[in-house]
Amino acid sequence: MYDLAIIGGGPAGHVAAENAGAKGMKVVLFEKRELGGVCLNEGCIPTKTLLYSAKMYDHATGGKKYGITAEGVSYEYKKIADRKTKVVRKLVAGIKMKMETHNVEVVRGEAFIKGGNENHIEISCAGAEYIAERLLICTGSEAFVPPIPGIEGNEAVITNREIIALTEAPQSIVIIGGGVIGMEFASFYNSLGIPVTVIEMMPEILGGMDCEAGEMLRGIYAKRGVKFHMQCKVARIDGNRVYFTGNEGEEECVEGEKILVSAGRRPVLTGYGLENIAIETERGIKVNGRMQTSMKNVYAAGDVTGFSMLAHTASREAEVAVSHMTGGTDEMRYNAIPGVVYTNPEVSGIGFTEEQAVKAGIEYRLHKLPMTYSGRFVAENEGVTGLCKILTDKEGKVIGMHMLGNPSSEFISTASLAISCGMSVEQIKRCVFPHPTVSEIIKETLLEA
Amino acid sequence: MYDLAIIGGGPAGHVAAENAGAKGMKVVLFEKRELGGVCLNEGCIPTKTLLYSAKMYDHATGGKKYGITAEGVSYEYKKIADRKTKVVRKLVAGIKMKMETHNVEVVRGEAFIKGGNENHIEISCAGAEYIAERLLICTGSEAFVPPIPGIEGNEAVITNREIIALTEAPQSIVIIGGGVIGMEFASFYNSLGIPVTVIEMMPEILGGMDCEAGEMLRGIYAKRGVKFHMQCKVARIDGNRVYFTGNEGEEECVEGEKILVSAGRRPVLTGYGLENIAIETERGIKVNGRMQTSMKNVYAAGDVTGFSMLAHTASREAEVAVSHMTGGTDEMRYNAIPGVVYTNPEVSGIGFTEEQAVKAGIEYRLHKLPMTYSGRFVAENEGVTGLCKILTDKEGKVIGMHMLGNPSSEFISTASLAISCGMSVEQIKRCVFPHPTVSEIIKETLLEA
Repeated sequence: MYDLAIIGGGPAGHVAAENAGAKGMKVVLFEKRELGGVCLNEGCIPTKTLLYSAKMYDHATGGKKYGITAEGVSYEYKKIADRKTKVVRKLVAGIKMKMETHNVEVVRGEAFIKGGNENHIEISCAGAEYIAERLLICTGSEAFVPPIPGIEGNEAVITNREIIALTEAPQSIVIIGGGVIGMEFASFYNSLGIPVTVIEMMPEILGGMDCEAGEMLRGIYAKRGVKFHMQCKVARIDGNRVYFTGNEGEEECVEGEKILVSAGRRPVLTGYGLENIAIETERGIKVNGRMQTSMKNVYAAGDVTGFSMLAHTASREAEVAVSHMTGGTDEMRYNAIPGVVYTNPEVSGIGFTEEQAVKAGIEYRLHKLPMTYSGRFVAENEGVTGLCKILTDKEGKVIGMHMLGNPSSEFISTASLAISCGMSVEQIKRCVFPHPTVSEIIKETLLEA
Repeated sequence: MYDLAIIGGGPAGHVAAENAGAKGMKVVLFEKRELGGVCLNEGCIPTKTLLYSAKMYDHATGGKKYGITAEGVSYEYKKIADRKTKVVRKLVAGIKMKMETHNVEVVRGEAFIKGGNENHIEISCAGAEYIAERLLICTGSEAFVPPIPGIEGNEAVITNREIIALTEAPQSIVIIGGGVIGMEFASFYNSLGIPVTVIEMMPEILGGMDCEAGEMLRGIYAKRGVKFHMQCKVARIDGNRVYFTGNEGEEECVEGEKILVSAGRRPVLTGYGLENIAIETERGIKVNGRMQTSMKNVYAAGDVTGFSMLAHTASREAEVAVSHMTGGTDEMRYNAIPGVVYTNPEVSGIGFTEEQAVKAGIEYRLHKLPMTYSGRFVAENEGVTGLCKILTDKEGKVIGMHMLGNPSSEFISTASLAISCGMSVEQIKRCVFPHPTVSEIIKETLLEA
């Protein structure tokens, strides 16, 4: 009997396996595709690799402002794609090695829960049977493809999975949904000079993030040629043509060689026998603060729980779950989960946005500065602006931080520590930020009245 | 009578002026050159602007690995230099505006302390007399030019001040001193394809920083063609020729169109009448934890105190000084001062290095990983390695962090918060770092056994 069976080897599953293995548990991990899950194979990592190539292209073509001239700048899409595959393989190999180091048995195949109770769970996979004392479900999420007429079976329509696998650039692309995934691909193709149209139902892109940052980013990409159709609903798709209606109700049409559907993701709740154990589900699998489901020896972590839907949340939930299994006191908190959009410039946020604070009725104070108050930002961002917003509560503690500008993704971890530890503005002001860095903007913003 | 007179408008002086002005003090600030001091006009900011142009050049020429090809990449040194000047002017203007906002009287000229006691200080500047209740000395530091035969009056020999002002690239450069300034210019000219030789007295470059990171960086630049002569002492300079001897004692000679002397900096203690008030000096002006000198109404902050010698230390000391003047309890601590070398890749460090911990007899535990454990680092650094080292004490608190890799300068602020607030490894592990970022390496390194 295994101490722990894990279904899914994404950022929740493989972190849980590693932690549990390190603590001496006998662990079996089932993965039907590749270790690393969507994040490593079809999400975070491949997109960042592509986006970095696009950034290098931007740098080569945009050097003039910095005194650098390059003639005849070109890209080879296949090389960009091949490098992405190479990077992914390298990191997948890294996870495999970690699994071996921690004596995790990795089984390739589709796991199926046959049944179980609070003492043990039975699972079959690839023709063999497995019995484990505990189960951790990390089956993740999949792209939600809305039931739009003409979408099914349409070869032009792709999701994050297929777009990552393209080996040549489309002539043009229509993106349905201006969320994180949509905007990252908009950024990528826009950099490469490919016509991009974004159709978004809501009044602003990047739903859930700071509206002001979203608006600024939209303005930046609109200037660079991306066409935005806001508050528009797709009515039907006909081949390469997407028909949509706006507030006015008049039907419009845009054409794209490819049509990316990035309209959100849904937890994966079917196909692996979840129905054979009696656990509660809501939008996703229902869990408590220790990631336990309604069945005490069954845990869930990651996108399958249906909220947050971020790789680093998944890994953290996995840590909490394993801590609880091994008698630890770790608990999951969601007040300091950062979120990043890897456009150029990046958008980063953590904690309450203004919109969320207002909605929750929380009294807050807003500290706000343009990024150009950072000397390094000015030195490295010719003709570019940016934004830093920090929300503090009435006790003077940081409850949210939202930024537009590079490389905000890399120093928002500072806010993660500040919020997690309940640091006050006074405490942060007394910390020394290296000069000149963009990270100084945090202190500058807090010093501003 | 002024509440506060400040001599020097660098990172200590202008921050103090701003803070004191904001608190309603009547402040006069004397500056003989430009607001912003060495840092903004001849140091941090202009070098970072130059280095970013070099990075753009590196990106344009090095895109192939990422699928990007650029033909005929070239640079215009004058444009790079002009942009540097523009950036500096913009930021100087920003400081001027801040001074106006906070009603600081800025006097251009060389201030001279005529005398004073614990009740008031008399200063003359540009033909006028000023009396202030308190004095803050922020006269900074200047490049130390060692008394090497042939150095005086030699037109080929320059310091950080002259090198920043060059409007055309030298054909070749010899750098005496492989510290931070020396290595940043080595990096800059090496990127632009200019032959660089570094002569260093010590066994390793970047004295005071983590030796392993220094060694790795030296290896990287040696591969790129920079010639290092370690443990070598310059004996004499003859025109463009630098003669030096190594351990073997045999004299060698290298030639450079320019010879940069970056052999450290010395506090400025003369030329402004310091002798007219009876305050104690050591290497620099002696101060207590509140930046008070031996005369209770005279404070000193920044490089003139003779230790740390970093812009962000100066600004923090200024905050502490003004806090004390206005009845605050703020105190200066030096255990969490970050230091960054803006080579490509960057080196960042904070707190104890291994070498320092050993010397101080502190029991520590070393956590260490290559940067390639970060997915984003792999995605954005083809064929590049890096290093993350974290030192914890026996109570499991972080006491030092040292990194080689981009953009470590931007997330070492996370360690600044952690060390300042005495966070334990367990607390940091429970914080969520955004995925994928290079900043995750902190958590990864702490998770590693």
